[in-house]
Amino acid sequence: MAQVDINCDMGESFGTYRIGADERIIRYISSANIACGFHAGDPVVMNRTVLLAATHGVEVGAHPGFPDLMGFGRRNLDCSLEEIRNYVIYQVGAALAFCRVHGVKLQHVKPHGSLYNMSVGNEEVARTMAEAVASVDSNLILVTLAGRHGELMTRIAARTGIRIAMEAFPDRAYTPDGHLASRRIPGAVIENPEQVVERAVRMASEGCVISLDGSSIPLRAHTLCVHGDNHGAVEMAAGIREALEAGGIAVVPMGKMSL
Amino acid sequence: MAQVDINCDMGESFGTYRIGADERIIRYISSANIACGFHAGDPVVMNRTVLLAATHGVEVGAHPGFPDLMGFGRRNLDCSLEEIRNYVIYQVGAALAFCRVHGVKLQHVKPHGSLYNMSVGNEEVARTMAEAVASVDSNLILVTLAGRHGELMTRIAARTGIRIAMEAFPDRAYTPDGHLASRRIPGAVIENPEQVVERAVRMASEGCVISLDGSSIPLRAHTLCVHGDNHGAVEMAAGIREALEAGGIAVVPMGKMSL
Amino acid sequence: MAQVDINCDMGESFGTYRIGADERIIRYISSANIACGFHAGDPVVMNRTVLLAATHGVEVGAHPGFPDLMGFGRRNLDCSLEEIRNYVIYQVGAALAFCRVHGVKLQHVKPHGSLYNMSVGNEEVARTMAEAVASVDSNLILVTLAGRHGELMTRIAARTGIRIAMEAFPDRAYTPDGHLASRRIPGAVIENPEQVVERAVRMASEGCVISLDGSSIPLRAHTLCVHGDNHGAVEMAAGIREALEAGGIAVVPMGKMSL
Amino acid sequence: MAQVDINCDMGESFGTYRIGADERIIRYISSANIACGFHAGDPVVMNRTVLLAATHGVEVGAHPGFPDLMGFGRRNLDCSLEEIRNYVIYQVGAALAFCRVHGVKLQHVKPHGSLYNMSVGNEEVARTMAEAVASVDSNLILVTLAGRHGELMTRIAARTGIRIAMEAFPDRAYTPDGHLASRRIPGAVIENPEQVVERAVRMASEGCVISLDGSSIPLRAHTLCVHGDNHGAVEMAAGIREALEAGGIAVVPMGKMSL
Repeated sequence: MAQVDINCDMGESFGTYRIGADERIIRYISSANIACGFHAGDPVVMNRTVLLAATHGVEVGAHPGFPDLMGFGRRNLDCSLEEIRNYVIYQVGAALAFCRVHGVKLQHVKPHGSLYNMSVGNEEVARTMAEAVASVDSNLILVTLAGRHGELMTRIAARTGIRIAMEAFPDRAYTPDGHLASRRIPGAVIENPEQVVERAVRMASEGCVISLDGSSIPLRAHTLCVHGDNHGAVEMAAGIREALEAGGIAVVPMGKMSL
Repeated sequence: MAQVDINCDMGESFGTYRIGADERIIRYISSANIACGFHAGDPVVMNRTVLLAATHGVEVGAHPGFPDLMGFGRRNLDCSLEEIRNYVIYQVGAALAFCRVHGVKLQHVKPHGSLYNMSVGNEEVARTMAEAVASVDSNLILVTLAGRHGELMTRIAARTGIRIAMEAFPDRAYTPDGHLASRRIPGAVIENPEQVVERAVRMASEGCVISLDGSSIPLRAHTLCVHGDNHGAVEMAAGIREALEAGGIAVVPMGKMSL
Repeated sequence: MAQVDINCDMGESFGTYRIGADERIIRYISSANIACGFHAGDPVVMNRTVLLAATHGVEVGAHPGFPDLMGFGRRNLDCSLEEIRNYVIYQVGAALAFCRVHGVKLQHVKPHGSLYNMSVGNEEVARTMAEAVASVDSNLILVTLAGRHGELMTRIAARTGIRIAMEAFPDRAYTPDGHLASRRIPGAVIENPEQVVERAVRMASEGCVISLDGSSIPLRAHTLCVHGDNHGAVEMAAGIREALEAGGIAVVPMGKMSL
Repeated sequence: MAQVDINCDMGESFGTYRIGADERIIRYISSANIACGFHAGDPVVMNRTVLLAATHGVEVGAHPGFPDLMGFGRRNLDCSLEEIRNYVIYQVGAALAFCRVHGVKLQHVKPHGSLYNMSVGNEEVARTMAEAVASVDSNLILVTLAGRHGELMTRIAARTGIRIAMEAFPDRAYTPDGHLASRRIPGAVIENPEQVVERAVRMASEGCVISLDGSSIPLRAHTLCVHGDNHGAVEMAAGIREALEAGGIAVVPMGKMSL
């Protein structure tokens, strides 16, 4: 039986600032990426979010980012590899502690924003990321971008001895050669909910996606990323979950797959 | 054979800012309290400092503080218990991760500055601290102030099921009723190195200290706190270590004691 | 003709985090308190908010707070007077710069959260606040709490040579002796919109308020504080503005009053 | 009579962290660049440093940087132009406030670290910087890199209507075509004190520098940058000052020059 994970970024509130409909999206996902206090999140929010995931039987991952709250971790910060490595270790450790407190396992690590992009596109950053994760716990799964981009991390992970999970974005366009289309390209973000749901199902059931030129290209993904930042996003996630299950695809956390 | 631990705050540098003679003080201590990035320290510094301790066979502790780098964690911040609890969990987790990376155990937790003072003097904060530490790892030792102040934490720790280590300050005056003398009292900080060394030996060998009025009062301490922030401080620590060993007192990390 | 100012805290968003319906509340107020980046706000938000005020002919004030974004400046931070003084100068300077950029005058300074409370209740903090404001620009108006609390600041301001504006809260209860009722007292926050509007009008037209025991007590206020953080709050502000004008009370920024 | 300014970065301490020998270097310089709390410095330090400069008759400049204390403003942060513009306005405003408090004029703005480099090498950032400074006060002088790099800012400043001061580095090598040599090139930083002093004098008296290939190239600088971060640096600054005056070159703040 086909299976796929659904992941979502969560715990991005900070102090009195609220972002995300965490309490609603949690019902539709199988893996939660918890912000770790650098680009978003704070210790109180982390605790609340790990507890929320634990309560709903959703697996927990660390979602480390650059130390740039003002830029929400979306701005490139020209860090050294040593800095990146230790920023990741630090944040994964903080997430680990909240998992212990709530008696759950830390399942995965998914870098956030610019750190995700750099770990996808830059070999040294990719290796640093894999090694940082492995150095804390070699059972952790590292989430990376499915498609052509993912080949780099696949090679590196194999050498580092950690498992990786390939991630796809149902609401993002892909180029015919298997890359995620840049947000600057018109149509890069797909807003039609039916279309997004259909793409999610195709990704999970057929392992492919219709690219920008209309051709079907292979895209093997273990986990689909959904958003929980507004009402429409939650509805879309609910639609994806429902359609997957209606299509006979089991929604299963990445940690229960053979990666 | 009598034994005592020597602990020191370390890893308090931040970015390009340097504080402390960590590389020199490490030779004289048995337990290192590692700043965790809230009041001081950053991930790169934490990594370097845990490695330094590991290399020298010095045990590692987390040294969590208030999120107040500008005030070095020394200013009271009127947090809720929920905030304190999660700040401690977060920082202990970060320290844990660096311990894993370097293959050492996290031995203890010693709160810093205002958080230390609040955990010593306020029952609710003391309980919150003990529970936070226990919730991450009930094998962790919580460091608290020896003397009359320590009775509160002793009761709380017993209920919480964690071990505590009593800490004394050889360079600080004590009142006849067993309290640490306030820094505002003249003579509260003892600056004469010979006197500090002598007090350290007496604390470790006889379990007592000469109080402000000249009377000898009992002060059972598992660990003596030394400073490593300047040349004189390092010399003093060296003198304490040497005098203890010359006096037949073994310098042993708190984790190797029966607490 | 009777007149009163209406002020509101604004520009409290930070990075990608949004708080407050600034674009809507701006139409009903005459003075805007701009967060200055310590407890809330960032340079981009400050610029946008000063421009918004300038565009609507609303006067601008600096709204300095403690350096505690995680606690939104609402937690007491045990700063020295020197720290408080320089935190205020720094933040007022930042606000001044955005006023220059948009060709408007900085009208007033209203401390935020814990800093407001401390400047109301503590003589040394009150004096430090008044002197800090005066040292940057002695034409600035300092906003303080109307009622019995305000007497302290009135004396201090007179000595310091700056003007003060007395502020009242239509949605907060007052004790019979003229103090703002603590939020811990049931009924301290008045939620019925009609009642709040009625109290606002009475404050502005009669210079008094019905206190907790039903007695009418004098409360001379130059400015009424409204909130703009949600739909209901904006509606309430609109109601206050409308009722004031219907009652023949001119809504006038504090800088146009003889204080 | 020939004249030149000597500038130095100051006020880079933060909280309990101390950097720089500000009290000693101040005697040898004519313009102080005051860190503004983003990459270094805090309000208490700013106040103390502006007072120090005022006391010694040294002119004050704002030294704005990226909001990256952990990286000391030396890491590229991929900000938008809107962010850069408002970060500069904010920090210049804070510096202005401390100048008002101490009754001195803010003379200039010199961006720090990565922000300096970006404003030198990127036309859009250069224009944003010039416009931000002009928007706060068109009498402010913007400091930029002398040599070929400086041509861009000269054109932009002319259009923006602000004055610029060209800065040269006596302890840095220049390429034959008038660029500052990258720090990665061996010999990029000149460590021999006599050589640095000699270069400083040549820059000021002859308006040229011996480049990496031994050729003398023109380098018209209004201000020479010296360092104050350690004993050797202060000695070097003292040597430069002495040699300049011995050579009949007046040390004059940039604000007293016709730029």
